[in-house]
Amino acid sequence: MASDTRERLVRSTSRLLRTQGYAATGLNQVMAEADAPKGSMYFHFPGGKEQLAAAAIDLFAERSSARLDRQLTEHETVADAVVAIFDSYVEHLERTEYREGCAVATVALDAASSHELLAEATGRALRAWTDRVATALEADGREPTEAHALATLVIAAIEGTVVMAKGERTTEPIEAARDALKVILGGEEKSSNLA
Amino acid sequence: MASDTRERLVRSTSRLLRTQGYAATGLNQVMAEADAPKGSMYFHFPGGKEQLAAAAIDLFAERSSARLDRQLTEHETVADAVVAIFDSYVEHLERTEYREGCAVATVALDAASSHELLAEATGRALRAWTDRVATALEADGREPTEAHALATLVIAAIEGTVVMAKGERTTEPIEAARDALKVILGGEEKSSNLA
Repeated sequence: MASDTRERLVRSTSRLLRTQGYAATGLNQVMAEADAPKGSMYFHFPGGKEQLAAAAIDLFAERSSARLDRQLTEHETVADAVVAIFDSYVEHLERTEYREGCAVATVALDAASSHELLAEATGRALRAWTDRVATALEADGREPTEAHALATLVIAAIEGTVVMAKGERTTEPIEAARDALKVILGGEEKSSNLA
Repeated sequence: MASDTRERLVRSTSRLLRTQGYAATGLNQVMAEADAPKGSMYFHFPGGKEQLAAAAIDLFAERSSARLDRQLTEHETVADAVVAIFDSYVEHLERTEYREGCAVATVALDAASSHELLAEATGRALRAWTDRVATALEADGREPTEAHALATLVIAAIEGTVVMAKGERTTEPIEAARDALKVILGGEEKSSNLA
């Protein structure tokens, strides 16, 4: 079915963007991975590679948002949810041998400044994630300005430790930042408790 | 002079890596930007593009480390130095219209998992930066484990907010994370002071 082909194209693109970014991802590679018939690409994505990548980022962002919502709902505090989110990144990077990072971060760095559709998609995703964490922090009792600043720090720490884990080929930075954020968000006020 | 050509090749590559990553950076583009004569590339870098990119990352890392040292020395506290570092990223991203990010982060995400030399170079850079901030935090009176966790959070926040600034085309996330870290590192113990 045509719609299955479209979905396979988007899923394969999303995985390739996580692994290698926008520039390295060629349409032939996407079609091979998606096992998609010739011609299906431009049938579903007349705007070509940029339109396909924007759809893949939107899919990645949507699934990440749903997982974020689930983790924020399942845990009593934002601190506990953040620990679970960081642990899931540890697991994912280990399982994929440091190949699969974040599609949004990779494209934000390698292509968003020169591609309007991609900047729109990465911006949408990052704002949505930050807003979700900020809302949860407000529900935890933080003031809006404080909640926004801390939520930005949490999302930046996720994106930044994925960079570090891929760049250093170890999940240690994810675990170290997780431990720091647990204390900061957990309201164990004295940062000297961090150790 | 031959050594000038080598330096121009490395500098041009460093700037291209910051802007678009490893995959998008072609040798013809590097040679054009560096105004380098044909043949000079393989004379200076017989290992080709990967060797050139590793040298460019090393140069970028070395200059960033020197700037980090300067900022840590010039300011009385690590909190003040971190604010200055974040402000310099705000200025740089605005000046380059969100094009020039961090060469280490971009390559960590788009190529380090598949290129040994690049992973070594990005890993070296990230560990060096983290160690510098951790050492400064220890000098500020933090315990080693706490200093390492907070230093990792600082470096992750820099890399992550560069992702966010490029992905959202605004420096607002850099400023929000800076404000959060200023309170956290400043020892204003109650995080409710954040606003």
